[in-house]
Amino acid sequence: MSDQQPLCDIGFIGLGVMGKNLVLNLADNGYKVAAFDLDKDKVDAVLAAEASERAEGIEQRVFGCSEMNELVTRVKKPHLFILSVPAGEAVDRVCSALLAAGVGAEDVIIDTGNSLWTDTVRREASYRGQFVFFSTAVSGGEVGARFGPSLMPSGDKKAWAMIEPVLEAISAKVDANSGLPLERTQPGQVITEGEPCATYIGPAGAGHYVKMVHNGIEYADMQLICEAYHLLRDALGMTAKEIGEIFQTWDKGVLNSYLMEISAEVLLQDDPETGAPLVEMILDKAGQKGTGLWTAVSSLEQGTPAPTITQAVFARALSTLKSERIAAAEVLQGPKSEPVSEAEKQAFIESLHDALYCSKICAYAQGFALMASASDEHDWGLDFAAIAKIWRAGCIIRAVFLQSITQAYQAKPKLANLLLDPFFQQQVEQKQMNWRRTVAKATLMGIPCPAFSSAISYFDSYRTAVLPANLLQGQRDFFGAHTFERTDKPSGEKFHLNWSSPARDLTQV
Amino acid sequence: MSDQQPLCDIGFIGLGVMGKNLVLNLADNGYKVAAFDLDKDKVDAVLAAEASERAEGIEQRVFGCSEMNELVTRVKKPHLFILSVPAGEAVDRVCSALLAAGVGAEDVIIDTGNSLWTDTVRREASYRGQFVFFSTAVSGGEVGARFGPSLMPSGDKKAWAMIEPVLEAISAKVDANSGLPLERTQPGQVITEGEPCATYIGPAGAGHYVKMVHNGIEYADMQLICEAYHLLRDALGMTAKEIGEIFQTWDKGVLNSYLMEISAEVLLQDDPETGAPLVEMILDKAGQKGTGLWTAVSSLEQGTPAPTITQAVFARALSTLKSERIAAAEVLQGPKSEPVSEAEKQAFIESLHDALYCSKICAYAQGFALMASASDEHDWGLDFAAIAKIWRAGCIIRAVFLQSITQAYQAKPKLANLLLDPFFQQQVEQKQMNWRRTVAKATLMGIPCPAFSSAISYFDSYRTAVLPANLLQGQRDFFGAHTFERTDKPSGEKFHLNWSSPARDLTQV
Repeated sequence: MSDQQPLCDIGFIGLGVMGKNLVLNLADNGYKVAAFDLDKDKVDAVLAAEASERAEGIEQRVFGCSEMNELVTRVKKPHLFILSVPAGEAVDRVCSALLAAGVGAEDVIIDTGNSLWTDTVRREASYRGQFVFFSTAVSGGEVGARFGPSLMPSGDKKAWAMIEPVLEAISAKVDANSGLPLERTQPGQVITEGEPCATYIGPAGAGHYVKMVHNGIEYADMQLICEAYHLLRDALGMTAKEIGEIFQTWDKGVLNSYLMEISAEVLLQDDPETGAPLVEMILDKAGQKGTGLWTAVSSLEQGTPAPTITQAVFARALSTLKSERIAAAEVLQGPKSEPVSEAEKQAFIESLHDALYCSKICAYAQGFALMASASDEHDWGLDFAAIAKIWRAGCIIRAVFLQSITQAYQAKPKLANLLLDPFFQQQVEQKQMNWRRTVAKATLMGIPCPAFSSAISYFDSYRTAVLPANLLQGQRDFFGAHTFERTDKPSGEKFHLNWSSPARDLTQV
Repeated sequence: MSDQQPLCDIGFIGLGVMGKNLVLNLADNGYKVAAFDLDKDKVDAVLAAEASERAEGIEQRVFGCSEMNELVTRVKKPHLFILSVPAGEAVDRVCSALLAAGVGAEDVIIDTGNSLWTDTVRREASYRGQFVFFSTAVSGGEVGARFGPSLMPSGDKKAWAMIEPVLEAISAKVDANSGLPLERTQPGQVITEGEPCATYIGPAGAGHYVKMVHNGIEYADMQLICEAYHLLRDALGMTAKEIGEIFQTWDKGVLNSYLMEISAEVLLQDDPETGAPLVEMILDKAGQKGTGLWTAVSSLEQGTPAPTITQAVFARALSTLKSERIAAAEVLQGPKSEPVSEAEKQAFIESLHDALYCSKICAYAQGFALMASASDEHDWGLDFAAIAKIWRAGCIIRAVFLQSITQAYQAKPKLANLLLDPFFQQQVEQKQMNWRRTVAKATLMGIPCPAFSSAISYFDSYRTAVLPANLLQGQRDFFGAHTFERTDKPSGEKFHLNWSSPARDLTQV
């Protein structure tokens, strides 16, 4: 680098797909970025990309660095560094290297990876005094990173003042009235109006936790769409193209979402090699990177049920048992299939629409309830209206739907469950028979719908005043003397029946 | 203690309900036990119990100790100690105290608590050379501990020779031909014939892992019975007594199990205080101690789905939200209920029987598949026929059913899934329409059956050669360039469609 180069606003480390796009996004928004990666080709690639995209009259804003020490000297004080490196040990390695290169107590390092939230908590504590470790979870994939992601920042509130303008600038924007995204699609484009999809989430770890739950909901959303596809394909025998067209129609109504839109795109896509529908050439083994699994585990550990998210994780795991499934399909016969009339077909499609919608409401209800229980436990003070707001654009689960969730939590910030919001309550009540018919029909036909049916079980369990857990406590008291509470005695008073004595007397424990 | 007391065979630490009963069981089987507890009253209680139970002509076999040093001197060398203390830190505290009291490399300490299996692995490694840390998981509750539990021992194979006769003696016994328990119900009674419900499971941790999965299956079993009770109660409006009588009938057939038997007992029990059915006086908030949760988490982490066990854990969590559920029941209306004719009632009960049976098969299939994946990962070499055998008596899930599972794994030790065994395959195929009708009906009526429906989704997913995960991989490739495999290309070759370019070209990655 020549000495004429200006001091940069931001030092950026890690220029993979996400990092590169975040750098170009920062440059679009006027920030000068010193960019570093261990792989020099990636540094060259981001410089070339910026050069090719830069409009006439715009000055160079991205500058390459070939080592960490140089990077630190090229950034204004107090230094602001943004990391886009793989979650895990790499984050600690880079932090150590930056410390060695002279980063100090006033400087801020922001981790943008998909870190496990407990790692973020640990890092924030262990680096305290050495530098400010801040994090922002990023959702939106590579396109989001380039043209506006949804950002879930958390950490030291004092550092937020320095970070806020940067993250708000690069984030996606939403029209405040309609709740619809203000789309940015071209290099150089800047959107300054609208509400930014970036808000301070809470203390260290809170942002990554919220992002983790976002991804858990995303797993459920994807699985629910896949179950709808499965039913249309195997119950009605529809082609990929026909299903893609139905999804396009659905994308215009209450089911509007980015995931619905791209599902239609995938279904309508022909395979460049064979000309067949691409989806039929894709192997049905789903990968995963862990955030859905973490959400399910957290839900179990918090004791706040997220069965639909969990079923989505299990569905991916089951999909990977491809050879076992092929063998099992030979051996395990399902019910005989019966022909479906054209009238039944239309009714089925309408019911399915409502089943998808109601199940989706339950999946979001589970995710928000989970965040609420974590917020209570860790004293994060999460603002669910603000969280729903920043998910309206930029992120993978963005949807019209998030505007309704925003309104629900604006009306009642301490809402116990999304299902109790008057709008959602009314939606589910109105559409529940179609939902029930779809799950019943799928069950009778032998087409699996684990996420749909877990959602309906969740709804029905949640609205049941007296669950059969009384028998369960009786069983536990019988074999393990685990005691029970009584319906006619104050909460907390424990009783045990002496099951093994002939008298079967009751004692308070 | 006086100096005339004999040297004991075993030192026993921890005289809670389980510990006390294990000591009396050891004494019945002729072992001399030096018993210690920090709480002197508990020491006195076990001495008093032995004295009161001891038949004429039988010598004293249980001797109290008031401190750890004394305990060590009172036991033959090499020392054998058995611990019955709460899982967690207490185990390490006792081990340290025994080391301080002179325990050495030749001595064996057996942990009988409900320890997390990874703690057992860590302990076995960290104490190696100081003494032999061995463990045996114990199932059967207090009665099992007294008259014959199911034992799942694991650890150093060399130590097993010393431990084997002790554990086999105190374990439950099964008639080899019928697979039925040989019941022991009286103090002083000893059963020497039959097959013992204790077998060496594998290296350290394996036994506690197997016990953890046993408990996970137990959660599912209990929840399935509760869902059957819920349906009979709320769909058919039957009384606790009527349901208890149905369960008694079911207990005589393929659904025979200890849990079915005690469920009937609980349902038929009147409340000593009010005279009402006791079950109706028990509050519907289910407790849990963690092993079901651990099983669900392990299933997620192993990527080996156990959705029915997981739903059982979630059902307990949901049950604890009692006040939220009462409030939700006011707000969220379900479907209108319709009267059920007497003929429909009988058909419903018959269907429900089969639904319970098929769901139970799936829950066991999930548990055994989970153990198989853990066995592969940790190279434990688990013998599933042997495991099913020791679950036929003594433990909480004991049932006629386990004899069929034993036979399935004897016929094919590497069976990929219990559903593929010819007997179970035929059972599920024959009864599946009743199962489907039950779940469909419950769904239409608005009565939650999360475990039933997760089981049917598991069955249907497992036997589906082409799941809709192809669309899911398409979605992932679209938004995150996560790539996919193709049905027409070798496994492992990864492809990406360039979704954002107008050409939408396909590249191999």
